[in-house]
Amino acid sequence: MIRFYNARILTMADGCEITEGELWTDGDVISYIGETPAELPAFEREINAGGNLLMPSFKNAHTHSAMTFLRSFAEDVPLQKWLFEKVFPYEDRLTAEDVYAFDRLAILEYLASGTTAFFDMYFYPDSTVQAAIESGIRAVLCGSINGTVKDVERLNDQFQKFRHIHPRIGYRLGFHAEYTSDEGLHRGVAELAHAEKEPVYTHISETEREHLECIERHGASPAQYFESIGLWEYGGGGFHGVWFDGNDRAVFRRNDLWMVSCPASNAKLASGIAPLKEAYEEGVQLALGTDGPASNNALDPFREMYLGAVLQKLRHNDAAAIPANVMLQAATVGGARAMGLHDCDILAPGKQADLILIDLHAPNLQPIYHIPESLVLNGCTGNIRMTMCAGTILYENGEYFIGASPEEIIADTEKRISRLTG
Amino acid sequence: MIRFYNARILTMADGCEITEGELWTDGDVISYIGETPAELPAFEREINAGGNLLMPSFKNAHTHSAMTFLRSFAEDVPLQKWLFEKVFPYEDRLTAEDVYAFDRLAILEYLASGTTAFFDMYFYPDSTVQAAIESGIRAVLCGSINGTVKDVERLNDQFQKFRHIHPRIGYRLGFHAEYTSDEGLHRGVAELAHAEKEPVYTHISETEREHLECIERHGASPAQYFESIGLWEYGGGGFHGVWFDGNDRAVFRRNDLWMVSCPASNAKLASGIAPLKEAYEEGVQLALGTDGPASNNALDPFREMYLGAVLQKLRHNDAAAIPANVMLQAATVGGARAMGLHDCDILAPGKQADLILIDLHAPNLQPIYHIPESLVLNGCTGNIRMTMCAGTILYENGEYFIGASPEEIIADTEKRISRLTG
Repeated sequence: MIRFYNARILTMADGCEITEGELWTDGDVISYIGETPAELPAFEREINAGGNLLMPSFKNAHTHSAMTFLRSFAEDVPLQKWLFEKVFPYEDRLTAEDVYAFDRLAILEYLASGTTAFFDMYFYPDSTVQAAIESGIRAVLCGSINGTVKDVERLNDQFQKFRHIHPRIGYRLGFHAEYTSDEGLHRGVAELAHAEKEPVYTHISETEREHLECIERHGASPAQYFESIGLWEYGGGGFHGVWFDGNDRAVFRRNDLWMVSCPASNAKLASGIAPLKEAYEEGVQLALGTDGPASNNALDPFREMYLGAVLQKLRHNDAAAIPANVMLQAATVGGARAMGLHDCDILAPGKQADLILIDLHAPNLQPIYHIPESLVLNGCTGNIRMTMCAGTILYENGEYFIGASPEEIIADTEKRISRLTG
Repeated sequence: MIRFYNARILTMADGCEITEGELWTDGDVISYIGETPAELPAFEREINAGGNLLMPSFKNAHTHSAMTFLRSFAEDVPLQKWLFEKVFPYEDRLTAEDVYAFDRLAILEYLASGTTAFFDMYFYPDSTVQAAIESGIRAVLCGSINGTVKDVERLNDQFQKFRHIHPRIGYRLGFHAEYTSDEGLHRGVAELAHAEKEPVYTHISETEREHLECIERHGASPAQYFESIGLWEYGGGGFHGVWFDGNDRAVFRRNDLWMVSCPASNAKLASGIAPLKEAYEEGVQLALGTDGPASNNALDPFREMYLGAVLQKLRHNDAAAIPANVMLQAATVGGARAMGLHDCDILAPGKQADLILIDLHAPNLQPIYHIPESLVLNGCTGNIRMTMCAGTILYENGEYFIGASPEEIIADTEKRISRLTG
């Protein structure tokens, strides 16, 4: 049992109310939240939070973690040139061991940024599973975009292989996107989803071109086309949604789908600004993701929350466009629920102890008026003091407790990068 | 003498080339940059940079530092309501001692973010001067926006009082904005600038409304109107320039003026996205500022560089819109020159030792392909290991060396805030 006392606590159970008190963990779950009782049990460790903030950890609801290896490899080039000349040829050379190494690099950054779960789509899922299990973080794999899963049978094989492989690993059905697969595959995934009563996830309406080409092909936008073939009978969601119109958002609302926005990637790749204000006001469920680190370039939940808020102000020419709190909700509770981690969403007894401690005494978070808004508009990864996943502290005051040192992990990536890009 | 060895060095003397070697300081200046010589002099301290990056510190070329006291006080409210109900009434209550306290809070954040100089416009300049001198940071005061400087005579009094008060303090002529003063004042400032052969600075074309109203009043945009009355005979610059058109940028180019962009503030207040790509391509000199912390909400040069780059991609619907390097230049060399700190711009022997050490081994800066681009697109304040101003280390590995502890400074602001907003 670990005890945090003298803490401010933002449970997110009930909006953004903050209480003062203590929180205990027992094994991988939260066992108590409240005032200091008259009698205390024995603890393995007691941590004086010093008035700092305990809150649910961040959940990265869309990423391609191993793309760390191409971060800053080529900047400021047009999207098509970047993809075809600077990404695809190098991804072709990747081995399973490379993906493991580059995932570990991403995990260092996730933990230092307060992220304890990531929803990952990439090659070599075994490598991602291994990296996550070893480090102590949580990963949910999403369908696949790679060459080995070309048909629904193999998607099902992967699903069956990974769905119950480890308590910290999940698997959700999905495929890359409408424009990179055909109707046969889409209908096949829908059938599998019906058979398994499972949600389905995909990239959707990220660029205007892809959105319009789908309308040409299917006479309907991706969201409307997918709904028409029954893809989302058991829910799921879509990544990006930059070009959603009111009808697309209505599809998402009535099917309880998650709109996973990646504002930094959409900015860097000049895809556009997603209609988050409208989605929020219409009741669409929101989560946030970083997308891959090559198109971001960070794996930083603070960046996503901040952009999620301020880009709406620019889009709508209105400083009051969307409450900052909405982004805090999307980056934590929303993300967890979007990827099916319903026991990792809020802080409450019985929930998984996936939580962070934030240094409210850092100059950039002073003074303290409205902590949730402050986290969104002036918080930064440097404010993370501790990151706990499933009751285990994986990062604390700059130190990692993940079974390997940052130096080892970085040295391993350097060697591989020389080979891949040399 | 302090020696940094085993460093990567980005002098910014010649674009963004990086060399490996060492850098020495002697008193407040840089005394050597190069390879390790056969014989070494005696040093007070020798710092192994461990392959990390030494570079010029950031310069915040537009801010109202003491507005830390209103950060996160009121979020997501429309601009006019925010200003008239949530800012002005509280600013009216400020004392000189309050400004000193709130400046000290800002200085903590500046130093932790690698900023060693700020170009400040606010009430009670004596307080800002005191806070800067005591802490060891550099401040340049800019004209005034407050009630005590209503005429040119008093502006001149301030100018004469502060211009040579201390080696780390500067003063530049300026006034708040076209729309908050009249033609008499503008012409008076122009005369003073001519008499003193001094540059002049002002807020300019921050909002569309202000830009259009000036055209209505003067038959010319602010930039063109100010040029016509000879305000910029000896140079200077303007803060924001969000609504600049080609003619305004031409005024800036032909008068060698500094366009000081504040992208985060312009986003939060929904003022718009400044035409930085055009300005850059046309040869306008660029610097970056945070604006006040209440309208940002951070004092974070990484945020400004990042937004300066990616918002142009959104504005122009082009992932290649502006090279990231341009923003690194604007945040360091540009900022120094914009505020007249010509001996604090680059790293070179004889220049002021205003520099920072950046942890390139941080996971978010790995792998290392293009360091300057990486700093702009994935760097963060947590990557700052050391901040040196005028040869003195003021911040190192989370610790401050400024004559007061963060705890003291924060406790002082808390007391004052209770009084001001209670």
